[in-house]
Amino acid sequence: MSNDLNEAAVRAARAVNGERLWASLMHLALFGARPDGGVDRHALSANDIAARSWVIETAQGLGFEVSVDDAANLWIRRKGNRTDAAPVIVGSHIDSQPAGGKFDGALGVLAGLEGLRALDEAGISTDRPIDVVAWTNEEGGRFERSCTGSSVWSGAMELEDYLDDIGADGARLGDALASTLAATPDLPRRPRRFPAHAYLELHIEQGPVLENEGLEIGAVTAIQGIRWMNVEISGHGGHAGTTPMADRRDAFQAAHRAVAQLNASMADPKDVLRFTVGRFNVMPNSPSVIPERVQFTIDLRHPDKALLDERARCITPTVEAAAAPCIASISPILFMDPMPFPEEMIAGIEATANQLGHRARRLPSGAFHDALYPALVCPSGMIFVPCRGGLSHHPDEWAEPRHCHAGARVLTAKAAKLAGA
Amino acid sequence: MSNDLNEAAVRAARAVNGERLWASLMHLALFGARPDGGVDRHALSANDIAARSWVIETAQGLGFEVSVDDAANLWIRRKGNRTDAAPVIVGSHIDSQPAGGKFDGALGVLAGLEGLRALDEAGISTDRPIDVVAWTNEEGGRFERSCTGSSVWSGAMELEDYLDDIGADGARLGDALASTLAATPDLPRRPRRFPAHAYLELHIEQGPVLENEGLEIGAVTAIQGIRWMNVEISGHGGHAGTTPMADRRDAFQAAHRAVAQLNASMADPKDVLRFTVGRFNVMPNSPSVIPERVQFTIDLRHPDKALLDERARCITPTVEAAAAPCIASISPILFMDPMPFPEEMIAGIEATANQLGHRARRLPSGAFHDALYPALVCPSGMIFVPCRGGLSHHPDEWAEPRHCHAGARVLTAKAAKLAGA
Repeated sequence: MSNDLNEAAVRAARAVNGERLWASLMHLALFGARPDGGVDRHALSANDIAARSWVIETAQGLGFEVSVDDAANLWIRRKGNRTDAAPVIVGSHIDSQPAGGKFDGALGVLAGLEGLRALDEAGISTDRPIDVVAWTNEEGGRFERSCTGSSVWSGAMELEDYLDDIGADGARLGDALASTLAATPDLPRRPRRFPAHAYLELHIEQGPVLENEGLEIGAVTAIQGIRWMNVEISGHGGHAGTTPMADRRDAFQAAHRAVAQLNASMADPKDVLRFTVGRFNVMPNSPSVIPERVQFTIDLRHPDKALLDERARCITPTVEAAAAPCIASISPILFMDPMPFPEEMIAGIEATANQLGHRARRLPSGAFHDALYPALVCPSGMIFVPCRGGLSHHPDEWAEPRHCHAGARVLTAKAAKLAGA
Repeated sequence: MSNDLNEAAVRAARAVNGERLWASLMHLALFGARPDGGVDRHALSANDIAARSWVIETAQGLGFEVSVDDAANLWIRRKGNRTDAAPVIVGSHIDSQPAGGKFDGALGVLAGLEGLRALDEAGISTDRPIDVVAWTNEEGGRFERSCTGSSVWSGAMELEDYLDDIGADGARLGDALASTLAATPDLPRRPRRFPAHAYLELHIEQGPVLENEGLEIGAVTAIQGIRWMNVEISGHGGHAGTTPMADRRDAFQAAHRAVAQLNASMADPKDVLRFTVGRFNVMPNSPSVIPERVQFTIDLRHPDKALLDERARCITPTVEAAAAPCIASISPILFMDPMPFPEEMIAGIEATANQLGHRARRLPSGAFHDALYPALVCPSGMIFVPCRGGLSHHPDEWAEPRHCHAGARVLTAKAAKLAGA
């Protein structure tokens, strides 16, 4: 394994304070804390706004420049010697699933901020600025189309295309965005897009590989592709006690037949394909009324684009046929192709981890991440740390303090190196 | 067909004003009116309270005594010559399903009130008082255990057993009841229970029989039995992109397997059994999160108690086995045995209809009704009128004005006869 780091980068990593990072993770988890230990911090919600305010105050208190862009991506800058140089960006997100955990996203943002403090305390200057970013709505738990902020910043999407999205709570994204921006009227407004030198994201693995192999760091090779779809099934309501079974157009039973066929179509003996129905809503949802309408989501993922496309293509005909005589309508929510990271970045992360004394391996990401989008416009990479039982999107999500610390060390050292420490 | 009516009862029926009844039906439908023409008037909701206020004002304006009991059943009395005599009760309910129609329940209450006006206008006195009742929470659309008011009045249930029920909107029944009673502080309080001479309920059929046969009146022979159950399935949440399919305890997929087995177990070649999954909730209900918990309802009905019991008994083992390795818990919401009405009452309704010139037949009720409970304590009967396409519990629910009129005529004549006109 080649040496990736210079002496300044190693010093920066040593200055990373694991206890301080841990305290900040526990503090951020208070915003939207659930009684079961989890976090409910939907994008652009009151909890999200409160969490952002705390991050802003913390960063400003440390003397860093904080700004926000039109998509409410939050930017924290540690200046470089060359003010005109494209920055190295590190970050992730602070929104959560409705019953999410304390680490997914939060670790990448707070480890970035801890890295800026470590550079300050170690007295290290960098050529390029380092920006820590908290992207808006990575999770898609409220507004279904996820990675809103990072997709807009990268230019893959236009902000205006998202504004009329309606959240699970009935809120319009444009309105929630305006409320969020209005909460911090004094923040300077960053341009929607600007050149970047590189992007790094630290995240919990959300899978069992690192834990099972007793490793501390994963150098992510690629993010598997995803096909998210929305299925609407329209039948005919009526009284549950009087309508003969033969005369029914029960939207619930139509959805049931569709799911049965999809389960068969998505079977994968290798267990690499992931197929999930995570949201399922019935209207009017009353015990004695035959369901008139059902809406459910399909989440389909695979690292191989050809296979993913092949399976995704069969969804519409399968659902339409199974739902008859009810009418099915299938629409895309989010399609992302598998995204490989550059070899140079993967090798650099692996070497950095090893040089800092952490056991590492390469692995693909089962989950998608904001890094998908920066990867379109600058060299990008991801660093994984283990999480207990591979569990995430769950109140019991857990990462050990020493693993968070290790991840922050690798992130800080690699960012310092990329920024020209 | 024997003559059931005396001259006064026939005069009372002739005094029933079909246009006035129709106007009152359309007016009541304004309380909780939906843009699609339906009605959303959950029991003890603000819409229900507003509707009650209008009924109270209307009845008081006509000089009838209005009172309420602890279960918020609303009572409208036309006095009899014998003040101490047990009343003839006619009525139904004015709460609706969340996407209900204008006639289910409302017709029985407003036709009762129209009957009282008709008796006044025809100058007919009766021996016994006639009480029009609007029972509380027949539908069970908000608080699942339906027929709250009639079951308490009949003594089948204690009001206190319902108070801690939690509605679909999170409200406690006891609190919603207190708010409803507080809205009409000046109404006299009726005892929870009192003797009744007879009970009559007019209702739309909610099935296709009368319409298909071109009839105007149904004399209801019995109400089929019902088994309502709640199923809770607990699995384990997790990330939809990372958790291998083989490692999942997906509560949605467990519920899917359970429904598949139930569909098979409930198959009935004669199409008499009714099996409906009307409510289905997924937690946390997010596209990229493996469902951790699912709750759904089972509505099972059949006119034969032995068959109903046999099918109901297989639900728990079937669901538990199908849901494994997830954990299923099945609890009863409402069990009602089939309820036959007395032959005397059935024959009397049939004869009354014929004597008034309406084509009638006997038929069982596919839906349950408040009449189930008065039938436990006094001779009770039900009168059906056709509804379009047999549809109910739906915004498109529709009964022709002439059928509503015919039903109100039969109800009024039969009530007048029973009350000693």
